[in-house]
Amino acid sequence: CYCSTFRVDSQVPCDPGLEEQNEDNGNWAKYFAVQYTPNVRCKVPTTEAPQSDGLQRLLPISVLTISMNKVSEGVNDNKLSIAYYREKTEELGKAVLHLTAVEISLDVDADRDGVVEKNNPNKGSWKWGPSGHGAILLVNCDSESTYMKKVDSSTDKVTKVSDLLDMSRMVLRTNGPAELPQGYKLALQISQSDGESIRVFKKRKPEGAMKSLHKIFSMFVKEFPLVLGNDVLSQEVPYVGGSNEVDFFVEGLRFPDKDFGGLVTINLSLLEPSAQDFPETPIFTDKVVFRVAPWIMTPNTLKPVEVFVCSTSDNNKFLKEIKALVEGSGYKLNICKEYMNRGDRWMQDELEFGYIDAPHQHFPVVLDSPRDGKLQNFPYEVLLGPDFGYVTRMASDEKVTSLDSFGNLEVSPPVTVNGRAYPLGRIIIGVAFPTTSQGRNMTKVVQDFLWAQKVQQPIALYSDWLVVGHVDEFMTFVPAPDRKGFRLLLASPDAGYKLFHRLQNEGYGKAKQFDGLGKKHEITLDELLSDKALRAENLYVQNCIDWNRDVLKRELGLDDEDIIDLPILFKILEDNRAAAYYPDMVNMIVLGNKLGIPKPFGPKVNGRCALEAEMCSLMVPLGLSCTFIDDFASYHKLLGEVHCGSNVRREPFKTKWWSLEL
Amino acid sequence: CYCSTFRVDSQVPCDPGLEEQNEDNGNWAKYFAVQYTPNVRCKVPTTEAPQSDGLQRLLPISVLTISMNKVSEGVNDNKLSIAYYREKTEELGKAVLHLTAVEISLDVDADRDGVVEKNNPNKGSWKWGPSGHGAILLVNCDSESTYMKKVDSSTDKVTKVSDLLDMSRMVLRTNGPAELPQGYKLALQISQSDGESIRVFKKRKPEGAMKSLHKIFSMFVKEFPLVLGNDVLSQEVPYVGGSNEVDFFVEGLRFPDKDFGGLVTINLSLLEPSAQDFPETPIFTDKVVFRVAPWIMTPNTLKPVEVFVCSTSDNNKFLKEIKALVEGSGYKLNICKEYMNRGDRWMQDELEFGYIDAPHQHFPVVLDSPRDGKLQNFPYEVLLGPDFGYVTRMASDEKVTSLDSFGNLEVSPPVTVNGRAYPLGRIIIGVAFPTTSQGRNMTKVVQDFLWAQKVQQPIALYSDWLVVGHVDEFMTFVPAPDRKGFRLLLASPDAGYKLFHRLQNEGYGKAKQFDGLGKKHEITLDELLSDKALRAENLYVQNCIDWNRDVLKRELGLDDEDIIDLPILFKILEDNRAAAYYPDMVNMIVLGNKLGIPKPFGPKVNGRCALEAEMCSLMVPLGLSCTFIDDFASYHKLLGEVHCGSNVRREPFKTKWWSLEL
Repeated sequence: CYCSTFRVDSQVPCDPGLEEQNEDNGNWAKYFAVQYTPNVRCKVPTTEAPQSDGLQRLLPISVLTISMNKVSEGVNDNKLSIAYYREKTEELGKAVLHLTAVEISLDVDADRDGVVEKNNPNKGSWKWGPSGHGAILLVNCDSESTYMKKVDSSTDKVTKVSDLLDMSRMVLRTNGPAELPQGYKLALQISQSDGESIRVFKKRKPEGAMKSLHKIFSMFVKEFPLVLGNDVLSQEVPYVGGSNEVDFFVEGLRFPDKDFGGLVTINLSLLEPSAQDFPETPIFTDKVVFRVAPWIMTPNTLKPVEVFVCSTSDNNKFLKEIKALVEGSGYKLNICKEYMNRGDRWMQDELEFGYIDAPHQHFPVVLDSPRDGKLQNFPYEVLLGPDFGYVTRMASDEKVTSLDSFGNLEVSPPVTVNGRAYPLGRIIIGVAFPTTSQGRNMTKVVQDFLWAQKVQQPIALYSDWLVVGHVDEFMTFVPAPDRKGFRLLLASPDAGYKLFHRLQNEGYGKAKQFDGLGKKHEITLDELLSDKALRAENLYVQNCIDWNRDVLKRELGLDDEDIIDLPILFKILEDNRAAAYYPDMVNMIVLGNKLGIPKPFGPKVNGRCALEAEMCSLMVPLGLSCTFIDDFASYHKLLGEVHCGSNVRREPFKTKWWSLEL
Repeated sequence: CYCSTFRVDSQVPCDPGLEEQNEDNGNWAKYFAVQYTPNVRCKVPTTEAPQSDGLQRLLPISVLTISMNKVSEGVNDNKLSIAYYREKTEELGKAVLHLTAVEISLDVDADRDGVVEKNNPNKGSWKWGPSGHGAILLVNCDSESTYMKKVDSSTDKVTKVSDLLDMSRMVLRTNGPAELPQGYKLALQISQSDGESIRVFKKRKPEGAMKSLHKIFSMFVKEFPLVLGNDVLSQEVPYVGGSNEVDFFVEGLRFPDKDFGGLVTINLSLLEPSAQDFPETPIFTDKVVFRVAPWIMTPNTLKPVEVFVCSTSDNNKFLKEIKALVEGSGYKLNICKEYMNRGDRWMQDELEFGYIDAPHQHFPVVLDSPRDGKLQNFPYEVLLGPDFGYVTRMASDEKVTSLDSFGNLEVSPPVTVNGRAYPLGRIIIGVAFPTTSQGRNMTKVVQDFLWAQKVQQPIALYSDWLVVGHVDEFMTFVPAPDRKGFRLLLASPDAGYKLFHRLQNEGYGKAKQFDGLGKKHEITLDELLSDKALRAENLYVQNCIDWNRDVLKRELGLDDEDIIDLPILFKILEDNRAAAYYPDMVNMIVLGNKLGIPKPFGPKVNGRCALEAEMCSLMVPLGLSCTFIDDFASYHKLLGEVHCGSNVRREPFKTKWWSLEL
């Protein structure tokens, strides 16, 4: 009878035909009896009660469930034989099964504790949530080398052995005889589309898995050849006898996006040779599933790590004041020199800092804007490096607008909205208003990317009413000790007019806005308040902001008490679009409880700027300290402020993205 | 003070400044008192206890929450005035708010009962499940006209008034004064991407919504102009005074697919004019969400409606036998004539029947295969019509293979797999085996379409081992009274050999396979069983089928008792690929409890075909009757059988797809 390797608890039809015909043609068995070696377990269908003499009545379909309780020490070291009888005394013939038991398991860190466990029952699927399961993969988007650097995933080699730490470990565990039966083999397989999303490298040396991953530092990259990738969707992997483990390292190649949900599957098959020259067929498969980690943004409420600004020919004063604030607060200040920024001072707009996180590894990742001003080389040339990742999206055909700058890409602190929690907050972008089918928008490829990350579901605000068109021109978030742990700050012309009216009524009508900036700027409150055009413009601006206020209240689940209106006026410039009239205090840098706020040059009351005083009276009760930074000449006049001119890398969330309930 | 229309429970800062300055410069109010007309409700923050004399202390931020308990009969027919006092006796000035209350609601059938309810709180979101909510939209993929027909959604007009019944009704309800205040207007808006997915038509006559939709039959298409679509993302809609309703009809344009999740949003805004020539800004919006209904396949266990076959020059005998079976079973038989099929007899392969379903409407939809044989015009020319939809996917660059024929696209009956229910079953397709990166596959656009429908999550089997490569060559489902309500039937060379061996042993070794088909076909069992090459080929085939058996058991949650092995042998033809050796009994047509099975021409035992006898002995206990149809010359010799040569349209599921928990 044809012999084969059976996987544990597989079934064999006990087919007398083949044997028996040779023995005795024209006769047919009515009974059978089963015998087997000690490690074999055999279940006879209970429907067939054994006869007194231990014989079984042979039914049209008699199925024996055969298993082994111990792996084989040699090929076919176990047997099961079936003797066939016509009458109970007369043996007609025997069928003999030769059995080889092998234990095979492809293992990953499906319980997300940073360690590859053994044969996790959930390794073949992926589930969100604290009680969820499924392994996690990072896009290998950093660069192990700093000289002649490339994003690691751009080559199909292991850049340095340290690169393996950015990959997810996968272990092939086998237990069985010294070799598999003649012609049998093991193979790993991935699908065509997964070939675009992952690569798999293997530790060449077969002498078992590494106890500690730090062992890799004593090894060479050539010891980790590529086994699976875009051009190799299937590859045989060696079987090593006895109880053995082989290390694999899985590399993520792309982030979730419109055309990629983020899940990938790796299959392991035990292949059986076929008669003649037919292809082998698998008789056992195991599979593991990974989800590629999303790119995550960090809100103002997270602890800063380092601050980035540009030095230009004309911003020394600004730099001095920023330096004092940042270093005074105990954070690292990085100054991007002019040879690199080529006069482009808008550090906020060229890039967004985020991070990727897995149980075994995490690092910051910069999202490079399609804006591509003169700062465009900075993210790749300066930021990309060991454990500092880089990702970008190029605007396809559509033209890039000012709304593609990342001053127009922010993220809220964690919120809960009618019972639904967003523990990592929600991304906020600005777009054209739906009532106009024209208008500027954030380019589609970037929007698709942001939505596809899933864990910080985006909110689209209306920012096209501004000349520059960035959400950071009218809103920001600051930490707060009470309520939801933060306040939403909104620019408010109404609050501005209210303050100025009060001052006028208190007799300061002659006090000057832009005080200290010289005659050509200064204007008295009486003049300002009697400017009907300016008032009308600000009524319009207030409407635009109120619209966004409603959206933010609804999408972030905020009450009016969670929102603070800052006294800021706007001015309409070209084609009915607005810009801040005086330095836009909401466009601030938030460093813990220290705020770096554009110096508003408001009217002086008893020698103190009334706008600064108002700002402090609103922030100080929240335990926040205000530092006013003069950005008038070097930023405000160019339609930007402190926030536009800086960027902050922050610590990641304590909350793990895979624990979200999605 | 600038007056405005406030939506119910909006808030106004009571800002003394503007008024008061005109009255009396240099003085400032300490108190205020509020007065208003009967329909106005006004909440003064409780933090400010009223003084004995009813005056309120004026705080830096005093916010009044104003609402109205009745809609206005005229513009600004309600007032709220705030008097300001320096000392309690001395009134400084007054601020007056003129109020107009309007009720506005955009309504849909969010509770899925087929009727548009009033202002459903859940209309703005979509949730799966029996306790879910959210409106449903059909792709308008049928053709109201039969002459010069086009798919209705291919034109941006209403084809016939009956076409409106394929759309989802949407009602704009307003209640307020005869007209809105000067310059205010209502507008509907959709996003750019939703513009590719839907159109909105409007009932022109403003005299209220239709009580019954059948009223539309007395109207003309020109009374239903387009208001929103790809080229019109935003449009003003008229405000009609008093309590009024306006009908809209929403048309779905595309099915869920890789690049379209299926959700669309329609926004309604009340726009406020801005001073000068600034754009209007919305002061109130309402929104409704629809999900486009997926395309759903119908398994063999659903009741047949009509059967389709082709008539060719050489299949009269086959037609006669099919006709007898189908009409004998009380179903409609449609014969596709030769001028249309041009000799292409593979009715199963050119198309797949399915349907789309919404609370207000449902109809069959044919999915046209990219196969495009000589039958390619049949689905569009013959099937498309009133309440019979059409959808297709063209293979992009990749070349179409035999695996794109829909004999390779089936669907299981409802199953539950470790606790997860699939009440609409699971789609089953055949692909290349992962161990080979070559091999034929089902084209990507069709696979993407099938996966995107979500409600019958597909399973990929290995069918490339067959010359023709269709899953219906080795599997089908039949209804059963017990267990899971069905059995999976699998072709089984092992079962075939087992049967033939038994016959041989019972002394029928001289009986002939292909009995009755003439010398050149006939072969005795003794000859057949001694053919070692054939045996080896069938061992290989059994391995391929066993592989699929394991996948089906796992993905459909089946036990061995849910599977029946049919005695069928295969033969290897070109490049190691297989085809049925004798007529492939598993490739049957299932009509309720009547099976139309390829006549196998097996060896005769006591004058009866032993294969037919075996087949009956397996099916009859399930209450199924077997009719054997001779397809040898006209189908089997061309590598197809009864199932390949026929197609069945079935009744939809009772289970509603939106009640699934996804």
